[in-house]
Amino acid sequence: MKKLFLAIISIGIFSSCQCNKTVSKDPKTSSNTHLQDSIVIRAVFDTALSDGKGYEWLRDLTQNIGHRLSGSPQAEKAVAWGEQLMKNQQFDSVWLQPIMVPHWVRGAKETAYFTTKNTKTQVAICALGGSVATPKNGVTATVLELSSIAQVTEYGEKLKGKIVFFNRPFDATLVNTFEAYGGCVDQRWAGAHAVGTYGALGVIVRSMTGSIDDFPHTGSMGYQKLPQELRVPAAAISTKAANALSAAIKTNPHLKFHFQQSCKTLPDAPSFNVIGELKGSEFPDKYITVGGHLDSWDLGDGAHDDGTGVVQSLEVLRIFKANNIIPRHSIRAVLFMNEENGNRGGKRYAAAAKENNEIHIAALESDAGGHTPRGFTYDGNINKIALFKSWKKLLAPYGLHDWEKGHTGVDIAPLKSDTIILAGYIPDSQRYFDYHHSANDTFDKVNERELQLGTAAMTSLIYLLDQHLD
Amino acid sequence: MKKLFLAIISIGIFSSCQCNKTVSKDPKTSSNTHLQDSIVIRAVFDTALSDGKGYEWLRDLTQNIGHRLSGSPQAEKAVAWGEQLMKNQQFDSVWLQPIMVPHWVRGAKETAYFTTKNTKTQVAICALGGSVATPKNGVTATVLELSSIAQVTEYGEKLKGKIVFFNRPFDATLVNTFEAYGGCVDQRWAGAHAVGTYGALGVIVRSMTGSIDDFPHTGSMGYQKLPQELRVPAAAISTKAANALSAAIKTNPHLKFHFQQSCKTLPDAPSFNVIGELKGSEFPDKYITVGGHLDSWDLGDGAHDDGTGVVQSLEVLRIFKANNIIPRHSIRAVLFMNEENGNRGGKRYAAAAKENNEIHIAALESDAGGHTPRGFTYDGNINKIALFKSWKKLLAPYGLHDWEKGHTGVDIAPLKSDTIILAGYIPDSQRYFDYHHSANDTFDKVNERELQLGTAAMTSLIYLLDQHLD
Repeated sequence: MKKLFLAIISIGIFSSCQCNKTVSKDPKTSSNTHLQDSIVIRAVFDTALSDGKGYEWLRDLTQNIGHRLSGSPQAEKAVAWGEQLMKNQQFDSVWLQPIMVPHWVRGAKETAYFTTKNTKTQVAICALGGSVATPKNGVTATVLELSSIAQVTEYGEKLKGKIVFFNRPFDATLVNTFEAYGGCVDQRWAGAHAVGTYGALGVIVRSMTGSIDDFPHTGSMGYQKLPQELRVPAAAISTKAANALSAAIKTNPHLKFHFQQSCKTLPDAPSFNVIGELKGSEFPDKYITVGGHLDSWDLGDGAHDDGTGVVQSLEVLRIFKANNIIPRHSIRAVLFMNEENGNRGGKRYAAAAKENNEIHIAALESDAGGHTPRGFTYDGNINKIALFKSWKKLLAPYGLHDWEKGHTGVDIAPLKSDTIILAGYIPDSQRYFDYHHSANDTFDKVNERELQLGTAAMTSLIYLLDQHLD
Repeated sequence: MKKLFLAIISIGIFSSCQCNKTVSKDPKTSSNTHLQDSIVIRAVFDTALSDGKGYEWLRDLTQNIGHRLSGSPQAEKAVAWGEQLMKNQQFDSVWLQPIMVPHWVRGAKETAYFTTKNTKTQVAICALGGSVATPKNGVTATVLELSSIAQVTEYGEKLKGKIVFFNRPFDATLVNTFEAYGGCVDQRWAGAHAVGTYGALGVIVRSMTGSIDDFPHTGSMGYQKLPQELRVPAAAISTKAANALSAAIKTNPHLKFHFQQSCKTLPDAPSFNVIGELKGSEFPDKYITVGGHLDSWDLGDGAHDDGTGVVQSLEVLRIFKANNIIPRHSIRAVLFMNEENGNRGGKRYAAAAKENNEIHIAALESDAGGHTPRGFTYDGNINKIALFKSWKKLLAPYGLHDWEKGHTGVDIAPLKSDTIILAGYIPDSQRYFDYHHSANDTFDKVNERELQLGTAAMTSLIYLLDQHLD
């Protein structure tokens, strides 16, 4: 603690009085604790905003390595990049945690068009991650447009020989775009599985975005235990093309749709989670994890999903060091591998924690983009909800007003127990699905200050967790 | 009121019970009022998010007319555009309010460079609005770098024959970028006035942005009552060039800076505020104004400053009509002319209100960009602060948590009195000064949903003002 307060003095925020006291949770001194917390948080924001490193790290990751699908050469490079960066930052320990990851490859750029009597209209599609290829010359068939998975059973045998087109759009009236995504993503994830037994020839899914543009958005899908011969190719179609196709079907119900893709799943490939740690001074055997995922889809350069979460997590540890904040617990930055299509990294990290009898008291994930911070979600130890929510008053002055129970992060979810606090970083959601899983998710969409504010908010939360948990 | 509630019923949100009651401010029924308000606000957001028109209106204004500096042909076109749009929307009354506006023109594109013994470095500048031209062949002189207006007196006669370079940057640690702007803008506004009496030859001001890029940001400046012969040319320099110049001065204190600009002030030109009104059902002679400014600087296309405020204000009245909300008071959308360099529109609107004995009970301005809403500022009638703040609970679910006393808007400020409520729309501020007054302020920087959410927040506030004020 002493070094922490020396740090406070050294950065010129506080020159005397309370600083040499030990932080106490005695209610009588709670306002004092609150003051000390607020001073550290201010220092954290000052460092992030005036001397942030994450934006240039993100530029390097996205522009010099690019997209990083599990099993790809770029993912391998990203692992080395993360490890080297942690070493350069002189974290106390840095290591790689081996895993085996799914290895799906897209192959040649997909093509698609639909034809009516007189016209042929090219449309933008991309294979969904995990999909099988079409036959070499593609699939050509009439289209059955549906708006829900439930309709599959209703139409039953009518699906035979058809391309099924799931076209339920985002509900624009939902203020939080993640809710709109949650209301549609079953079409992408489960569409191909649902139609497989009815003899459909393929699946086309409206891209998971509320924006009307010409970017198809990929993402994971699964056949579950469907036999190989019932697995049909599945692709996302841009929202602009989806609207055009839907309109064309209304006037030409028998129009033919054609698409062609050559994606395939190779044998699992070796990869790694990248882990860096600052050793705790009081509870070195208790852990707090902060992470994002290093892998990305293979369109765009994975800037908002999840390059921002990666560099923010690295920044948390750097900012602790830069302000001489000595953590009480051991704090780990984890760059998880394979969030997008398997979560092998998250599962392995939790399994290893269990095998090693590690006590994990808290984990925070940033995997919702790098926009202006709005708050944090919370899950896990319900006895700590009041404590967690009490921190709102410390971060509301920085624009973090949303503190709510909810989904926190795919990578940290396997750590969930009754004793751990899981937290998810909530940035502003309005632009996120304009980019998510598409060629539009590129570095230029990230605003430096928005990224830095998120970094500071995350660092502040990790500081509070470290200070106020035993 | 009846029509309002019929509207609620017709949009299917509410099918019975409370809806047919008259809104009452009796505390016993305040929860009922709250419920009714929340239902209308939900309907307003639904309309804005699922059937918003403002984004396409903004595309039209910015891409088909472009920038709209007072006195320019584009400003004239924008007046006609606004008038026609209001007529198309069938507002109850639409009219133009004549004013005379300053007419400053930029002339040929400015040029600037600095030279050391071996090199000549071109830099990006733009004349400040209201500046005089340089002599035909430009100004060439050594540079004195200052970080504040206060230093001018300190250096005094040392300014003679120099180009004074005001280079105090934005304070990056301020979370609200408007505070950073407020902490620097005196250099732009008052720099040339300050140096005039000391024989300086020109003024170069670091652009008013925290972003390090190559866009110079213009903006207004004033010579006040300085005699013509002491008025020196003033220009903004991009932050990237400002950093380069500052670094170069450190190694070459005698380097020469050259700049050339041919701007001039023509005689005042005729123009207009554009006003559209919905007639009040209970208090037709009491007015609530919502506005933005139609003029813009002559770089970029004036999208965030203030095309977004213009289309949002127009949308407020359209959304009232679309939901059959009959206002109790008369509600005006005002597209103010000349906010940027004179505020003649705002002053004339307030003066005309006084001349006509109009009772103005509230005014709202949107002139801080079109990003995601964060809240509203408040000024004017202090007796209504509690009422104003009580609405936070209705709009916090839509992300509006900041309800604070503060600056509301340049255009509506002349309406200020002890009886009027003035309000300013607060969007997220992080990106605004990346664009503000520069060639970077273009339509593509506006996100449709962010714009729509702001529109809905503004419409909701106007609804609440109309419902709860007498």
